[in-house]
Amino acid sequence: MKNVTVQFTPLDVRVSVPQGTTVLDAAMEAGVHINAACGGQGTCGRCRVRLVSGTVDCAPGGLLAAQDIEEGFRLACGTRVMSDATIALIHTSKLEAPPQELRTGRAAAPDLASACEGPPAVRKVCVTIDAPSLTDTASDAARLMRALKQQHGFDPLALDPAVLHELPEAVRSGNRLVTVTLEPLTCQSPPGNGAGPAPLLSIIRVEPDDTTPQTFAIAIDIGTTSLWGRLLDLRTGEAIALASHYNPQIKYGDDVITRMVQAQKPGGRALLQQAVLQGLNSIIDSLIRDAGIEPACISHVIAAGNTVMSHLLLGLETRYIRQAPYTPVVNMFPPLRAQLLGLRVPAGIPLQLFPAVAAYVGGDIVAGVLASGLSTRPELCLFIDIGTNGEIVLGNRDWLMTASCSAGPAFEGGGLRCGMRAAPGAIERLHIDPATLEPMIITVAHAAARGICGSGAISILACFLTTGIIDQNGRFNTQCSSPRIRKGPDGMEFVLSKAEENGNEDVVITEPDINNLLRAKAAMFAGYQCLLEKASLGFEDLQQVIIAGAFGDFLNVREAITIGLLPDIAPERFVFIGNASLLGAQMACLSGAMLADAGRISRNMTNIELSDDSSFMDRYVAAMFLPHTDARLFPNAVFPSARAGAAQ
Amino acid sequence: MKNVTVQFTPLDVRVSVPQGTTVLDAAMEAGVHINAACGGQGTCGRCRVRLVSGTVDCAPGGLLAAQDIEEGFRLACGTRVMSDATIALIHTSKLEAPPQELRTGRAAAPDLASACEGPPAVRKVCVTIDAPSLTDTASDAARLMRALKQQHGFDPLALDPAVLHELPEAVRSGNRLVTVTLEPLTCQSPPGNGAGPAPLLSIIRVEPDDTTPQTFAIAIDIGTTSLWGRLLDLRTGEAIALASHYNPQIKYGDDVITRMVQAQKPGGRALLQQAVLQGLNSIIDSLIRDAGIEPACISHVIAAGNTVMSHLLLGLETRYIRQAPYTPVVNMFPPLRAQLLGLRVPAGIPLQLFPAVAAYVGGDIVAGVLASGLSTRPELCLFIDIGTNGEIVLGNRDWLMTASCSAGPAFEGGGLRCGMRAAPGAIERLHIDPATLEPMIITVAHAAARGICGSGAISILACFLTTGIIDQNGRFNTQCSSPRIRKGPDGMEFVLSKAEENGNEDVVITEPDINNLLRAKAAMFAGYQCLLEKASLGFEDLQQVIIAGAFGDFLNVREAITIGLLPDIAPERFVFIGNASLLGAQMACLSGAMLADAGRISRNMTNIELSDDSSFMDRYVAAMFLPHTDARLFPNAVFPSARAGAAQ
Repeated sequence: MKNVTVQFTPLDVRVSVPQGTTVLDAAMEAGVHINAACGGQGTCGRCRVRLVSGTVDCAPGGLLAAQDIEEGFRLACGTRVMSDATIALIHTSKLEAPPQELRTGRAAAPDLASACEGPPAVRKVCVTIDAPSLTDTASDAARLMRALKQQHGFDPLALDPAVLHELPEAVRSGNRLVTVTLEPLTCQSPPGNGAGPAPLLSIIRVEPDDTTPQTFAIAIDIGTTSLWGRLLDLRTGEAIALASHYNPQIKYGDDVITRMVQAQKPGGRALLQQAVLQGLNSIIDSLIRDAGIEPACISHVIAAGNTVMSHLLLGLETRYIRQAPYTPVVNMFPPLRAQLLGLRVPAGIPLQLFPAVAAYVGGDIVAGVLASGLSTRPELCLFIDIGTNGEIVLGNRDWLMTASCSAGPAFEGGGLRCGMRAAPGAIERLHIDPATLEPMIITVAHAAARGICGSGAISILACFLTTGIIDQNGRFNTQCSSPRIRKGPDGMEFVLSKAEENGNEDVVITEPDINNLLRAKAAMFAGYQCLLEKASLGFEDLQQVIIAGAFGDFLNVREAITIGLLPDIAPERFVFIGNASLLGAQMACLSGAMLADAGRISRNMTNIELSDDSSFMDRYVAAMFLPHTDARLFPNAVFPSARAGAAQ
Repeated sequence: MKNVTVQFTPLDVRVSVPQGTTVLDAAMEAGVHINAACGGQGTCGRCRVRLVSGTVDCAPGGLLAAQDIEEGFRLACGTRVMSDATIALIHTSKLEAPPQELRTGRAAAPDLASACEGPPAVRKVCVTIDAPSLTDTASDAARLMRALKQQHGFDPLALDPAVLHELPEAVRSGNRLVTVTLEPLTCQSPPGNGAGPAPLLSIIRVEPDDTTPQTFAIAIDIGTTSLWGRLLDLRTGEAIALASHYNPQIKYGDDVITRMVQAQKPGGRALLQQAVLQGLNSIIDSLIRDAGIEPACISHVIAAGNTVMSHLLLGLETRYIRQAPYTPVVNMFPPLRAQLLGLRVPAGIPLQLFPAVAAYVGGDIVAGVLASGLSTRPELCLFIDIGTNGEIVLGNRDWLMTASCSAGPAFEGGGLRCGMRAAPGAIERLHIDPATLEPMIITVAHAAARGICGSGAISILACFLTTGIIDQNGRFNTQCSSPRIRKGPDGMEFVLSKAEENGNEDVVITEPDINNLLRAKAAMFAGYQCLLEKASLGFEDLQQVIIAGAFGDFLNVREAITIGLLPDIAPERFVFIGNASLLGAQMACLSGAMLADAGRISRNMTNIELSDDSSFMDRYVAAMFLPHTDARLFPNAVFPSARAGAAQ
């Protein structure tokens, strides 16, 4: 898709955006304020701009009179820029800051098919079976084994007893072709690319005829808040369907701790297991429906989740994860039959969970490290996963260190009064007019504002700080006055979107919300510092910071540095890889070598336990400030205190 | 137990029998006729003898007057000989043949514990688990693996997911001792005795504390007619309980063919599977109850059965076993979880079925060959299993050849009007007074006669032939007359025990019964000949004939040769090993090396398909005569035709 340049007058600000971007999104990207309180859904009519030149597509109907349209007026939220264009702003603040040049490199989604070498760990092969005769009375199983050896060089060690029920009819199908699904006996075992020792394989499924032309796998990310699934075509490596769903366990608590508390109640573990199974089944159903494939074409499911999510999916005890010394039942999860666990897939299809490292560094992080390539590269990288909890990995191809930061779920919308995931209606970006303190919000899918997601929360905090709405301690500035700042049931709060603007309820952010966010970012930052310190390194040594997490795609690095969530280093060193856990699961689906790598990563990663580390606590307290109590760590910070008065 | 000598007068016949043997059994052993129509239960009073000298124990009460007892009269069936004794017969026939000296060697039950080297394939080991700490946050599974490696040198490749549910509590038991059950990933894999490659092991069970001092295994023989089970103490190798049960599938047919016909009906396979499971559960319950052990102390179950029985137990398709070219689904059965199959044992306990060779040469034969030692010895042996079907193995440690003879179930009592298994009341031996044609019968457990078991049928046929009641074609001799020979609904029949003698119903043997027996023995004999011919050998080359089968213990070789069921070679070359299938299963329970041997035996055995072999058919027809149409094969036979007239 080609880019077009949008010039905003009278500010003489230009921004290059993909063709088809709305004027509102372009303005947000350029740091230009347009009043937009409905989130971009076209219902408030307050985001009027005037088209000076260029071609645009306008949403039909709406709140503008024909006369207005003739005069060039448009609603910024409903107008897509199709060529280079000049847009005149109607109301602009003289205090509008010049747009900063801090743009972040956005990692292109890796070309999975080429990134993943070799055959999948679980693979289907088609063999021709000899017909039995009085001179060849070998059993069906023996003839199958013989064909596998002669036609593919495989000599499976084991055979799932369930296969025996399908075998007689399969080997007698019209053309005597049988498709066999082979699984490695352990997830450590490489899939046998010719090099290395022969893999230890087990036959887990047989089907009549050659079904290999239609072979798919499902990659799943089991997030504490959200579940994501992707259906992959194993011939091409292409992702052909995507689905997501809230983790239905959310009704039992926002974070892993409350889930574990629930799990210890009588029957709790079963409830939690059923909840996540229900969510995963909804994802599987939707992937199969959207792609229009036969469920029998799925050869395997690979899922990555944190240690608690993985344990709860398997119905395992989490009591000892919760209490010191935080011991999981298992980190290297054995392969399972997905259907026996309760997933809606045909019998025999295996489910492999990503190996974990420790109680609070799970398979999702291992998958993320796998996807980021960190473990294969020479340069020093910091991997950050800002999900319901915060996990970080420091290292390169020679060594890996990891820690969990107890950041809490604030950056996934948890613990915020109006927090929500990045679903339609979630405020994902904010701009505050420094003069009027009026908000310009963009919501996911430009739907009526319903809440605040992670990237929105960061944007809000950054905007509040730079406009002086809050001070460096995260408290509402008593010198600021605006009809949108009010006292609510939880203390001071700011109304980001009024009920009459969104047709729903007031969307607010409260002082306790801000405190939760402050704690979360402080935990993350203290975590980076501790890991670097263990390796006798500093922020300046980081050659790349890889940011994973569901909101990775929407996170604004400038804003994240502003609030001290990310270190103040050169912006080109940051890359986003989005949902790295899902990406890693996809790679492991496509390549057995990648799955084996995941095992190596999990075994080689040194886990640093921060929860009882006094150095961590000290650094955490020091980071409970915006951006940080140590100003030397944020040399480029725009300190808001100097501007607080100007905002009045 | 010491032996005592019983002398029967006036015939001057002596026999050495174990102290405590009844006079009736001693007479049968000596070939001396005593009228005894009730089977030895002491109700007919017709087996009167007179004690001349010696000490005897008499059953109290009974049919003798005090006067009779004072005069030395006793009932032979209720009188046990406690010292050397002389017994006077009351009615003796002048025609009584002198007892033949043909005594058969009876193989002592092998000393299992010493015969079986090395640890069991499935073994329990106890490990001490390190307590987790903040400096050792390894998962429970990782600490278990580490302990197994450090304390026993085991490095299991796999872990049953079900184990993860027991693991957290097990590793936190009072003393942090955990007992782990390890299973080889394939039954071919040797159990690792130090020599050879390390075994590929899977962890299938964990239990808190050290449970290894109480470790038991169950060996099972799944016969078409009868199920047998033995509980073994794995520390000592001792068999501590024995149980048997009819195979409840019997209600769906006597032999494997009728079972397979039933299995093809809608729902038939499930019915047959449930039936055998019910029988096996009754055996397991009884073993556990009799031994007074905790079910959790059982580490594994190993079962041997013919190919059809094994398939039906697993609920597998038998359609292609039934029809040419007779293809089983599988011969090398993968290990299963016994409880998941439906056996009443705790979760996780594995069931291993003995590997089979072909459709009609099953795991029972492999187990029998294992038990007989045939496959490890230099001399040429013929192994004969006379069960519901007849299977034979010819060979030595260098080569093995096998065939199934379609003998039918006659020798297990199947296809006989009054046929039954060797349960109390089954006629197991017969003697006919050559003058009066009056029968002397011995029943199992000396209970009232209820039917005829396999050894009884052979005894009957031999007696009928030598007394001329039947001719060499197996037809009733029209020149014989006796109130016991009559015309019944199926043709001519002989009343072995009258209803008034046994308090029940007439027990008869009919001409069609005799014809079934003739067919069965002809098939067996033709089978021996075919296998020997394939190896260019003759009966004279046989150094040993090993006779297996449930009735092995009771079979009289002289009688079996008389009817042509066994070849006419030197009697000392015959050994009985009883239920060799159960014995082999016991050995495999005790020793993983033995179980691995079973795999080797099954792979190395050449199956000769006789069903379509014209040479077999010719030999079968030639054997449909008593003992055989080729008199040269039975040089020692007593030809009854010369005596037929004398019996009148």
